[in-house]
Amino acid sequence: MPVDPNAQIEITAFAWVPPFAEGLVRDLRPRWALEEIGLPYRVELLEGERPPEYYLEQPFGQVPCYREGPMKIFETGAILQHIGEKSEKLLPRDAVPRMRAIQWTYAALNSVEPAILNLFAVTIFYADEEWAKLRRAGAEEFARLKLKRVSDWLGDKPWLEGDQFTIGDLLMVTVLRLLRHTDLVAEQPNLKAYVDRAEQRPAFQRALADQLAVFKEHQPEGAIA
Amino acid sequence: MPVDPNAQIEITAFAWVPPFAEGLVRDLRPRWALEEIGLPYRVELLEGERPPEYYLEQPFGQVPCYREGPMKIFETGAILQHIGEKSEKLLPRDAVPRMRAIQWTYAALNSVEPAILNLFAVTIFYADEEWAKLRRAGAEEFARLKLKRVSDWLGDKPWLEGDQFTIGDLLMVTVLRLLRHTDLVAEQPNLKAYVDRAEQRPAFQRALADQLAVFKEHQPEGAIA
Repeated sequence: MPVDPNAQIEITAFAWVPPFAEGLVRDLRPRWALEEIGLPYRVELLEGERPPEYYLEQPFGQVPCYREGPMKIFETGAILQHIGEKSEKLLPRDAVPRMRAIQWTYAALNSVEPAILNLFAVTIFYADEEWAKLRRAGAEEFARLKLKRVSDWLGDKPWLEGDQFTIGDLLMVTVLRLLRHTDLVAEQPNLKAYVDRAEQRPAFQRALADQLAVFKEHQPEGAIA
Repeated sequence: MPVDPNAQIEITAFAWVPPFAEGLVRDLRPRWALEEIGLPYRVELLEGERPPEYYLEQPFGQVPCYREGPMKIFETGAILQHIGEKSEKLLPRDAVPRMRAIQWTYAALNSVEPAILNLFAVTIFYADEEWAKLRRAGAEEFARLKLKRVSDWLGDKPWLEGDQFTIGDLLMVTVLRLLRHTDLVAEQPNLKAYVDRAEQRPAFQRALADQLAVFKEHQPEGAIA
């Protein structure tokens, strides 16, 4: 398994998160990508508040950071590109399919994720606030439209650009998984099948199991399992 | 000037937008980047509703699309990377500074822009809706926090990674400009100076003038100038 305390590559991850975030935290992305290409990595776990010096490496205080000698990266899109450059299994080498795959990382993170996180916010983070109740239907409609666009594009292809699973699919699937508390993905059967297909990949299963194992190990006393 | 009807590179842009969007539409990003490296491009203008076939190229119906022979790209982050790969003036060649610049394109588009667009939504698009009035203070506070993080990172450096202006700065500045209807950027003097420094670049000035000239030419009769 790629988790190896002596690995050269290190990522940061949270020691524990509440159940609503289990399996959704962004360190899943590099874990999954590194599993796909079989590269070992170690994990630095963060507990409680981030210390001030963490912001010198990750200006927004999020996880994961990626460290590999002089290469230090804090955005998952860039981390996935860097990992993709290590293997054409995740990022084609020819200029056009390479840029198409990279393009889908931006589409996932900029054209789809914001609408999904806004729906996540009004249904989970701010569920009890009046503005969130008033906004919920609109936020859901906007997220639904984004999914429809992705579904229309995908059609009956296995992956966004055809037969090859790339870093673009990996990111898109981690974004779509944020909707697991809703039926929105299931409303588009081809999109549901796409997410299922990705989640069945052994590399995904291992990455997910490794993230969840950490949370279980660090579960605070008295937290709801 | 890079706008040239015989150029190999083509981008799509809107023929006209309402005044609140003038100078903010995303075709400004490739226009600016191509001006920085002196590469000519031509423009296909879109008027009114996008035809169904546009979605076969740009699943989300937005502008710009970028076309250069077999290379077709629809996300500005990827378009900027592709343009950056043509010149180290915008994207360093060495692995570490290259990935740091790429990382800032994702930071601009995923860690900063969504908070800014949410504020834009509650103050402009949905300003009269009850939920937007209730959410406005919270959305502003969240956008302010993001700007503080970028400001803290920037410190007294001229650009995000030091002395070189890169595609990461170009995208970050186009994101920060979305707040021109607020004082939020001005609250962080180093961030205000950063945006000013970028806007003073001759390439930015030319790109902006070219976008605005199109809107002026296509202004509907009776529209408020």
